[in-house]
Amino acid sequence: MRVKAIVAYDGTDYSGFQRQSNAESIQAALETALAQLTGEAVRVSGSGRTDAGVHAAGQVVAFDVNWRHELAALQRAMNALLPEAIAVLRVAEAAGDFDPRRHARSRWYRYSIYNAPVRNPLSNRYSLHVPQTLDVSAMQAAATSLLGWHDFSAFGSPPQGRCAIREVLRAEWQQADTGLTFDIVANAFLFRMVRMLVGTMLRVGQGALTPQRFAEILHTQDRSGAGPAAGARGLTLMAVHYNALTESGT
Amino acid sequence: MRVKAIVAYDGTDYSGFQRQSNAESIQAALETALAQLTGEAVRVSGSGRTDAGVHAAGQVVAFDVNWRHELAALQRAMNALLPEAIAVLRVAEAAGDFDPRRHARSRWYRYSIYNAPVRNPLSNRYSLHVPQTLDVSAMQAAATSLLGWHDFSAFGSPPQGRCAIREVLRAEWQQADTGLTFDIVANAFLFRMVRMLVGTMLRVGQGALTPQRFAEILHTQDRSGAGPAAGARGLTLMAVHYNALTESGT
Repeated sequence: MRVKAIVAYDGTDYSGFQRQSNAESIQAALETALAQLTGEAVRVSGSGRTDAGVHAAGQVVAFDVNWRHELAALQRAMNALLPEAIAVLRVAEAAGDFDPRRHARSRWYRYSIYNAPVRNPLSNRYSLHVPQTLDVSAMQAAATSLLGWHDFSAFGSPPQGRCAIREVLRAEWQQADTGLTFDIVANAFLFRMVRMLVGTMLRVGQGALTPQRFAEILHTQDRSGAGPAAGARGLTLMAVHYNALTESGT
Repeated sequence: MRVKAIVAYDGTDYSGFQRQSNAESIQAALETALAQLTGEAVRVSGSGRTDAGVHAAGQVVAFDVNWRHELAALQRAMNALLPEAIAVLRVAEAAGDFDPRRHARSRWYRYSIYNAPVRNPLSNRYSLHVPQTLDVSAMQAAATSLLGWHDFSAFGSPPQGRCAIREVLRAEWQQADTGLTFDIVANAFLFRMVRMLVGTMLRVGQGALTPQRFAEILHTQDRSGAGPAAGARGLTLMAVHYNALTESGT
């Protein structure tokens, strides 16, 4: 049976989603739990990598498993075996060829900033601390230039030799109190793209770049003008969206 | 100069506020930073102990220090030396006899519950996960019986031989989405009192106790009917209030 699962994790103590030798990954933790449960080696695929330290509220994974009980029992058993930092939020049967990466129509990431003079130990794990006052409307002007189809070479690397054109469907800063969030939805992302975009927009917010210059960096694909990447702790993969046809029931 | 400081901390990896041999405490971390800064042994007093694992958004401390520069520079230097899990949010000069424990008029604690079938790795550090549906109006009825002056012997121990009578000024459950918070303000608290109250009110919310039985446990001072204490991770000391006369400027 092919299973689609929605997984949340605190990425702080992990090397990222993807299995690596010599480092704890989310994928390996899921595969270990499934191997303990089934006595068989189970290969887990994700909708995409998340970097070391990046969190997820709605990563989507899929795996093939021999399971004769209810799916709810599989979920409970996985949650009992997984470390506290990882949880399976939902499970559903998927089409036999369901591929969480290739079939994803879009991904939603959120970047969180704690914007106050002194750091906050209680939000430190899930946000970047920026002490300076930020010009959020300039940052939103920069964000708006991201909408639509663009070659994002300035802000990240595509897989070897592949194209860097992506479609951004939403790019929105929101401010509340001492919190600032950036929500971005795109059909797909380049490696480190969200953190590079946020790091560059922070320079816009601090007055070091104009929104116009930001848009030029995007259009000229000038890598040297972008960055630095904002820290991983502020980034969370919120959700992955699929077409109804491939989604199979969640 | 006597200094009053507002301190926030993530208590997860600490044995509590108060210095202990063989364990990391918030007090010791503050004293270490001040000793590094001044070259002298500095004794830090707090408004009260917080248990192992309990957090603070507004703990109040005081200490005597020889400092010839601006207070803002003291704060910056302390924050540079302190671990990430601890931050000094504000500093002010205090009266020479300012005692953050004895002069406190009231303390405000918040207890946070994540109430959903599956645990949430992204709120796990700062809330208790309760999977069962809770009857929040029954919990609020129980909380309302706490208001005013009561002997709280059923819910905690006073310092040796001292009285267990405290005044609760506010006791309020609030629900939003999957989050549930309990705010309680009292002139002072017994050891473990908030966690014992919350643990017992959770039994009310799960239907194991009626609000009436909860009020009886309070009034009969029957320790055996109370508890168990809810976990430390959900508890945060939000603020400590002082009379204008002793507050000295923050």
